[in-house]
Amino acid sequence: MEINNNYKNLETSYLFSTISKKVFEFINEHPEKDIIRLGIGDVTRPLCKTVVEALQKACVEMGTQEGFHGYGPEQGYSFLREKIQKYYQNRKVNLKTQEIFISDGAKSDLGNILDIFSKKNKVLIPDPVYPVYVDTNTMDGREIVFLEANKDNNFLPVPDKNLKADIAYICSPNNPTGAVYNKDQLTAWVNWALENNAVILFDAAYESFITDKDLPRSIYEIDGAKSCAIEFCSLSKTAGFTGTRLGYTIVPLDLNYNNTELNKMWLRRQTTKFNGVSYIIQKGAEAVFSEAGQEEIKENIDYYKKNASIIADTLKKHNIWFTGGINSPYIWLKCPSNMESWEFFNCLLYNIAVVGTPGCGFGKNGEGFFRLTSFNSYEATKEAMERLDNLLSNL
Amino acid sequence: MEINNNYKNLETSYLFSTISKKVFEFINEHPEKDIIRLGIGDVTRPLCKTVVEALQKACVEMGTQEGFHGYGPEQGYSFLREKIQKYYQNRKVNLKTQEIFISDGAKSDLGNILDIFSKKNKVLIPDPVYPVYVDTNTMDGREIVFLEANKDNNFLPVPDKNLKADIAYICSPNNPTGAVYNKDQLTAWVNWALENNAVILFDAAYESFITDKDLPRSIYEIDGAKSCAIEFCSLSKTAGFTGTRLGYTIVPLDLNYNNTELNKMWLRRQTTKFNGVSYIIQKGAEAVFSEAGQEEIKENIDYYKKNASIIADTLKKHNIWFTGGINSPYIWLKCPSNMESWEFFNCLLYNIAVVGTPGCGFGKNGEGFFRLTSFNSYEATKEAMERLDNLLSNL
Repeated sequence: MEINNNYKNLETSYLFSTISKKVFEFINEHPEKDIIRLGIGDVTRPLCKTVVEALQKACVEMGTQEGFHGYGPEQGYSFLREKIQKYYQNRKVNLKTQEIFISDGAKSDLGNILDIFSKKNKVLIPDPVYPVYVDTNTMDGREIVFLEANKDNNFLPVPDKNLKADIAYICSPNNPTGAVYNKDQLTAWVNWALENNAVILFDAAYESFITDKDLPRSIYEIDGAKSCAIEFCSLSKTAGFTGTRLGYTIVPLDLNYNNTELNKMWLRRQTTKFNGVSYIIQKGAEAVFSEAGQEEIKENIDYYKKNASIIADTLKKHNIWFTGGINSPYIWLKCPSNMESWEFFNCLLYNIAVVGTPGCGFGKNGEGFFRLTSFNSYEATKEAMERLDNLLSNL
Repeated sequence: MEINNNYKNLETSYLFSTISKKVFEFINEHPEKDIIRLGIGDVTRPLCKTVVEALQKACVEMGTQEGFHGYGPEQGYSFLREKIQKYYQNRKVNLKTQEIFISDGAKSDLGNILDIFSKKNKVLIPDPVYPVYVDTNTMDGREIVFLEANKDNNFLPVPDKNLKADIAYICSPNNPTGAVYNKDQLTAWVNWALENNAVILFDAAYESFITDKDLPRSIYEIDGAKSCAIEFCSLSKTAGFTGTRLGYTIVPLDLNYNNTELNKMWLRRQTTKFNGVSYIIQKGAEAVFSEAGQEEIKENIDYYKKNASIIADTLKKHNIWFTGGINSPYIWLKCPSNMESWEFFNCLLYNIAVVGTPGCGFGKNGEGFFRLTSFNSYEATKEAMERLDNLLSNL
């Protein structure tokens, strides 16, 4: 038996293990210090009341003969697909329910979608980037070209007409930079994809943080996108489902390559290698889209957005360049005094006991940048920014 | 962009859609008939009390600040992996917790595991077979060779010494045949794999139906298996989790090919393309392995096994050859009067309004055979067998 040798080309990321190690060392040296973590990429607010009630009700149902549910449809129950259809309709995006596939999360689908593409495709990935895009393609042995995201383009690159690739990743609002593409920029992407017979994999995991009405929350708000883009979304950040697990992927019926409908291919992939999401979790997800659910999750998102604005205000006060923080839970800042990423990490840790994420961990263009997140508590975020304000005043 | 052209080689199975169509036609012609379905491959008994309570408790926890759980370990929580470790220990199989990976189901893992193997491997699959083994390898373009399972070998084939293959599938207790390999037969498989540097993918989804103490419930009860086999299991049939979704896969640390540990590869695959199973569902699964949980699920399994024995007794009475029905929820019978599979299907439907599954739908060696399942209610199964008894008495 021969293994998939592409795995040998995977690079091991030591980013989060190195952070842990450094924080551990610091705690050992300074056990009295009150560390505040703003490196967290995970939500911290509990599930909202309406969702918990729906989950509980479904658990009880599953214990009764009449309410028991066995195998469900691999692509998700209609009751949930219809709610998501309506969620898109509210933003004037019309989808058919068979274009909506329920899964256990965007990460799974972003990896698994590659099953339906040839290994010969060339892949375009912005740098800095969520590492999963690179790793999943490396596992398949696909050629990767990077698109430079940097301060000059506000970390929102658009491909040049001459750039050739078959599969392109966009994450907007972006992880790690928090930057959000506007309509013109996404239109340029869609036009590029249509001209190049490419497919866009659009990661919309943070769409619910967009409050600016002019910014697109779905790629399908752009004309032509249904002929060239697959959209991935999730309730992880929208409704605090990181530990509850539910995502959804839109594969439009108009997506057609080599005379083959991608929708049919993905349906075949999912019915063959997946058995659907738990009925219980799907009932919880349905409640997210109820009127009460939408109001309750908005409170949590607003909570995180308030934290983000406290961070943004502190950076503005000190004229520190940054992206994100308004329509995103992430703030991506240029390290002050031209520090390198790890230098600034140590500076924050040893001077004010605040932990963030060095930007260089997300790609070469991340060097000299730093990510802060809004997922800690209001109190901790405020305290951390008071410390940062002091530090920057004396730097 | 080029699609994965291997998808064009997939055969569409019309088995279950044809069954539905034929039953629908029959109902239209005979609306007065009381149809009994013994074709069901899904459990029907509700989740047991202890599990429902644990699920509910976890839902409540997730709604509190202290009890909230965000991202968990991709490979599953220790509290559950340790329970599964103990479950194996009870059968004298010693596993390390890092050899146990929690997932949303055996079907997902059986498909996804192929990511870590080269496309150049030759795959050995018994016929008749659970169609997913064939389809997932066809998607990757691997060469498939079939191993003949038939009446002569009691549908329990063992590979000949001269047979060369790299990846081999075993499902025991088997779907669709209900046949169970004994220790000698599994030892022959393990020896063959070790001699051929092959890996066995052992599907143990129905292991909990084995009550015969001499029959292995895990491939790791066989010496040497930890150096050549991956085992897939699930709570679907064990605890009625078909709609709740939880499985687990054992990748021993001793599995080493091309100087590479498969355990590390699978860990990398799962951390990159999966984000773990819902905390809520893992808490429900943990309860399955509690003392009360084990007693309660045993009641359900015994319920199905009683149904199976009613079916088996009816077939014995009429000297109909069959496998399964004792250590399995499935009964695989030779169609009486040398009927072909679909002929017998029509015979049952039109004479006694009983629905089963034609064996030919599982591969060429299934022609002339028929699958009945024990997943309907006791009352319905008993009634169906009374009708069958009458029919066979007059055939």
